[in-house]
Amino acid sequence: MSPEALNWSADNCTVGRALAIVGEKWTFVVLREVFVGIRRFDDMRVRTAIPRQVLSDRLTRLVERGVLHRVPYREPGHRVRYEYRLTEMGFDLYPVLQALREWGDRYLADPDGGPVTTVHRDCGEPVEIVLRCAAAHEIDKMRDLAARPGPGARRRTPA
Amino acid sequence: MSPEALNWSADNCTVGRALAIVGEKWTFVVLREVFVGIRRFDDMRVRTAIPRQVLSDRLTRLVERGVLHRVPYREPGHRVRYEYRLTEMGFDLYPVLQALREWGDRYLADPDGGPVTTVHRDCGEPVEIVLRCAAAHEIDKMRDLAARPGPGARRRTPA
Repeated sequence: MSPEALNWSADNCTVGRALAIVGEKWTFVVLREVFVGIRRFDDMRVRTAIPRQVLSDRLTRLVERGVLHRVPYREPGHRVRYEYRLTEMGFDLYPVLQALREWGDRYLADPDGGPVTTVHRDCGEPVEIVLRCAAAHEIDKMRDLAARPGPGARRRTPA
Repeated sequence: MSPEALNWSADNCTVGRALAIVGEKWTFVVLREVFVGIRRFDDMRVRTAIPRQVLSDRLTRLVERGVLHRVPYREPGHRVRYEYRLTEMGFDLYPVLQALREWGDRYLADPDGGPVTTVHRDCGEPVEIVLRCAAAHEIDKMRDLAARPGPGARRRTPA
């Protein structure tokens, strides 16, 4: 019995397209640094083991794709340099980061717990991801979720 | 002025550890296939451009890391083969997939929309991610989120 999904094309898959931008370990490590407020090339190298060339390449790519933008700064006695900030498109990756963090905290943390907590800036309380359907049901068990053809679903043309 | 995060170590970062498992484009493409019900090696190659060796490697790694498990099956006239299913740890990656899908649908979809919609199995309604703090505030603007040292935060030892 053939899985239903085989009838549908994955060519316009937006998960695939999202991964083409962020689906590589160092790329998301760079974004993690920017999200915690580390915006400068040299600072990014302090806490990570990213090789210079890889970091430079990933930053360039994230700017080209519209996730980061460059802002000039100048320290006394130095030439103008650039720091990297999230665009709106970049900020909107926060749920991806948070989902990764919650999963990592659950399965991969040291016994004392994960090193970072996401909080609501206004009240300081910790934040969690909730999955909720349009009928206002909150989904606790992931097995209660299902994938269905969406508005852009295309029948696959068998090879 | 030095960013506060530079005082803290990223060595035990659970986002980094999560990415060591899923932070590579093909890895998450494989998981996407399993999540939509495609579990067999040959079926996975139908909708994706993953080279055989890469697919084989990623599946092995996901089994070793506890995200997938192998279940034997046998079709008439063939030897026993294995299909791949999500473990509980694997199912719990659904919010990561959903966060990627929502972001991809928002910024990277074709004009007709994304090809897949996640629904609540019981009522069929579409599902969305909500970020909510422990004081029950829902966070709409990602700029209202902040990263704080968590239970496992460790001061960084300057080099």
